[in-house]
Amino acid sequence: MGNTEALRHQRQNYQPQLPPVLQDIEGACLRANAEAPPTTPLPEHFPSTQGLPHLQVAALEGCSASKAPRVGVVLSGGQAAGGHNVIIGLHDALLRRHGCVNLIGFLGGPSGILDNEVVELNADVIAPYRNQGGFDMIGSGRTKIESPEQFAAAKKTVEALQLDGLVVIGGDDSNTNAALLAEYFKAHNTPCAVVGIPKTIDGDLKTEDVEISFGFDTACRTFSEIIGNIARDALSAKKYTHFIKLMGRSASHIALECALQTHANVTLIGEELARNKATLRDVTKQIADVIAARADAGKNYGIVLIPEGIIEFLPETKLLISELNALLAKESKSFDALATPEDKAAFVVKNLSEEAASCFKAIPQRIQQQLLLDRDPHGNVQVSKIETERLFIASVTEELAKRKKERTFSGKFNAQPHFLGYEGRSALPTNFDANYCYSLGFIAALLVEQEATGYIAAIRNLAGPVDEWQPAAVPLASLIHMETRKGKEKPVIKKAMVELEGPAFKHFATQRNQWEVNDAYTFPGPIQFFGPQDVTDQVPFSLALEQTTPVV
Amino acid sequence: MGNTEALRHQRQNYQPQLPPVLQDIEGACLRANAEAPPTTPLPEHFPSTQGLPHLQVAALEGCSASKAPRVGVVLSGGQAAGGHNVIIGLHDALLRRHGCVNLIGFLGGPSGILDNEVVELNADVIAPYRNQGGFDMIGSGRTKIESPEQFAAAKKTVEALQLDGLVVIGGDDSNTNAALLAEYFKAHNTPCAVVGIPKTIDGDLKTEDVEISFGFDTACRTFSEIIGNIARDALSAKKYTHFIKLMGRSASHIALECALQTHANVTLIGEELARNKATLRDVTKQIADVIAARADAGKNYGIVLIPEGIIEFLPETKLLISELNALLAKESKSFDALATPEDKAAFVVKNLSEEAASCFKAIPQRIQQQLLLDRDPHGNVQVSKIETERLFIASVTEELAKRKKERTFSGKFNAQPHFLGYEGRSALPTNFDANYCYSLGFIAALLVEQEATGYIAAIRNLAGPVDEWQPAAVPLASLIHMETRKGKEKPVIKKAMVELEGPAFKHFATQRNQWEVNDAYTFPGPIQFFGPQDVTDQVPFSLALEQTTPVV
Repeated sequence: MGNTEALRHQRQNYQPQLPPVLQDIEGACLRANAEAPPTTPLPEHFPSTQGLPHLQVAALEGCSASKAPRVGVVLSGGQAAGGHNVIIGLHDALLRRHGCVNLIGFLGGPSGILDNEVVELNADVIAPYRNQGGFDMIGSGRTKIESPEQFAAAKKTVEALQLDGLVVIGGDDSNTNAALLAEYFKAHNTPCAVVGIPKTIDGDLKTEDVEISFGFDTACRTFSEIIGNIARDALSAKKYTHFIKLMGRSASHIALECALQTHANVTLIGEELARNKATLRDVTKQIADVIAARADAGKNYGIVLIPEGIIEFLPETKLLISELNALLAKESKSFDALATPEDKAAFVVKNLSEEAASCFKAIPQRIQQQLLLDRDPHGNVQVSKIETERLFIASVTEELAKRKKERTFSGKFNAQPHFLGYEGRSALPTNFDANYCYSLGFIAALLVEQEATGYIAAIRNLAGPVDEWQPAAVPLASLIHMETRKGKEKPVIKKAMVELEGPAFKHFATQRNQWEVNDAYTFPGPIQFFGPQDVTDQVPFSLALEQTTPVV
Repeated sequence: MGNTEALRHQRQNYQPQLPPVLQDIEGACLRANAEAPPTTPLPEHFPSTQGLPHLQVAALEGCSASKAPRVGVVLSGGQAAGGHNVIIGLHDALLRRHGCVNLIGFLGGPSGILDNEVVELNADVIAPYRNQGGFDMIGSGRTKIESPEQFAAAKKTVEALQLDGLVVIGGDDSNTNAALLAEYFKAHNTPCAVVGIPKTIDGDLKTEDVEISFGFDTACRTFSEIIGNIARDALSAKKYTHFIKLMGRSASHIALECALQTHANVTLIGEELARNKATLRDVTKQIADVIAARADAGKNYGIVLIPEGIIEFLPETKLLISELNALLAKESKSFDALATPEDKAAFVVKNLSEEAASCFKAIPQRIQQQLLLDRDPHGNVQVSKIETERLFIASVTEELAKRKKERTFSGKFNAQPHFLGYEGRSALPTNFDANYCYSLGFIAALLVEQEATGYIAAIRNLAGPVDEWQPAAVPLASLIHMETRKGKEKPVIKKAMVELEGPAFKHFATQRNQWEVNDAYTFPGPIQFFGPQDVTDQVPFSLALEQTTPVV
């Protein structure tokens, strides 16, 4: 019989590439980057960790390793390809610098820190996970360390384990957590360096110094493989318009990258729709216009990409959701007592503001019911569960039927909904993610050993060849701003949205008209691990555009 | 910026492998296979093409090409990876045997034959499609050539084009069509050889001689990549049970193959459920039992694979659908006049037989409404559109809630629905499909040139290395049986169902218990085109089992 393990074994033997200063990890050290002056926007929140310098990894005369640190590592939040390689990079760097490794993994995410649930990560334990997808080596979780009790529990655990360092692999919230934990440990004289690693397929943990989060490349390449396959199918069968929702939380980075990789006919970008104060009706019209133009060209098929977070960007749906949450919390008893879905819908319409009610009425019945019935344990509408791909299929169907009556549309419209998310989070990491993550692990090992707490590991010039990558570290506190979260002002790392003035979006904006009616699809195919370098060692298109195209 | 076209260009340069007798196509010929005596089960339907011998491709002394034939080719039905390579194999074989090529493609499927819509397929036209997915070179369609007028129109077209051969690339129905067209042409002295090619991702066009249809391998490998990714995500997040419906029409070949490739926790096999006369309740219980056993082991996550055709296999849902179709056809006026979905549901329950009504009531409301509202233009329930993945999520949710009340289940159950289909039909063909299809094209060229009408091209020993493949041709009429279709007896090629006594299912049956609670997932990863041969040149597991395992 065939061997599904063949590729896994091959990838276990892949030796990730490292930039030169990390190849010589035995002689590497950290030095302050004189060109980047220390900044801490909110010093009052970081009395003990403010004003830290930006760091670079360098090979300096006389650099050598100090005492071997004891390190704990935790995976936090949703899966992203490459997480295992961060841990393995950490392991290998410690081994090479110190000849021994004291590394433990916290099980099941940050709750493993609170409950002191750990596993020792030695060479045998980590071996099967080299260059593999998923977070299954130690699991992940979504617990946040926020309350004073939780901070104290974390302190207790790292002291009990005598950890010199804690590496937090996570997204924006987890890195905010890492910043606060670093401050807390420092303020309480707990000598444990807290280091963050930028992880998330969503691509929204991104600053001038943190060029991209890991996992984004693999997820987008996997989604683009699938979108390309679907596009080729649409082009062959000439029968369906596929509405493909893409995971990625609020920001539309994934949708933008997949558009660049596949040239879908329509790609919605939430940030642009928000800027334009677009309504559901506007978006429906925008999609319907392309479908009608394609039908005029004899093309009754197409591809529409919809970012998961779209609903939070349209002012009217945003308003509707916030009013619904308030209403259903206040009137839950009378609402729950209503017998039929129709009664519930009527109740809602009666009690919402005129604007929200009109938005609600514009939503197809099936989605209305989803809004009213699929609520979370707190009674809130579950935004991520709203099937926007089906919402737009319904609204576009209605719009095209209207146009058919008015004789302004004479094509055929058959739609298929898709949602891509879990397909791409735990895939085998691309070479880019495998190399990037392994290098991040190396940087983290240096930071911990050098007691550099409150930093996030980073690499500059990621769109270039690995030989030209510049390993660095950025003070976490320098990324923190105040934001309103659930009605409260909080110090957090800002989620990076698609920059409408940035080169990636601008490139997309100049190209997309040509993708609407022409069949300009490209079919990227599956991620390759062997063969010519232009096939195996690609970088995200948006990253390449950001680093090579001058902003006009 | 990155180059999504890199892999496409690399694959265009791939030279498909051919078995030895086809490598030497200039010296190849066809000979009758003395070991396989001619059989025509329904000679009355094939007066002119009965009793044809089975053929083998051989290198015989003194073999040489006769006059260069004019050939037409058509793609029929749903996409399957490798279709382009059949056409290109045909082209290359004609070129090598005759030094020139007279090849035309019918556009948009069999309707292209009826309407004489063609394109000349020369070297320039076909070049971009070498080893590429999709059917977009000439398109496909689902028109059937059935009526006397259609047969006459087909005759008129091939005569107008002076075709010596017509190659029909299609599934069971299209090959039935090819058999009847061969008979019709022969009976009417139209000197055009009709040759079939076994295409379908579903794997249900399969006989002793036609070991597998092309496209099955690529589709199953693509689906298994995705299922493996989702399984790794489930194993990491430990939060969701994924219900994955797999395209594949009635038969469960794709589900079985994907189970063998990924070791999902539960895989439903329609043929087995039918044999066991399973009810919806039984299947719900079967899934819930595994989920409960996993929960007892602390595993609140999992993977359930559901073949698309399941609903046609369960006696009660089969009955329900047939009664619903009859009822809604007869009572459409009174039904349509009912105002609310609740009224419609009540109407249906009142008018169905007790058994069908009880099955209807057991179906979750949302799916009930789908059954009643999403009907085709003839008013029939659209079986393929029934979201069985959501149906079972709803029924299992209900069942587990009941068990929770009874304190026999204390786990957590969160489900995610998926449907895989369009993702795998038009993918870049695997080496297996690329080689197989290119070889089938070579065989078709020989058949047409040698005026061997009424044959389907085939290759024996496909699980072995290409060097040991045995190119052959099987009389289409030998595959034809009588079957009831839409109430009428018709001569058709029988759809091959999963053989419950065959080695692939038997192997699955011995293994699946170990896959239920253990996390025995394998993660096949994306299809690879470069690198070690055990990674690039796999064959379908079920095929390998059929050819290497003795049937116990």
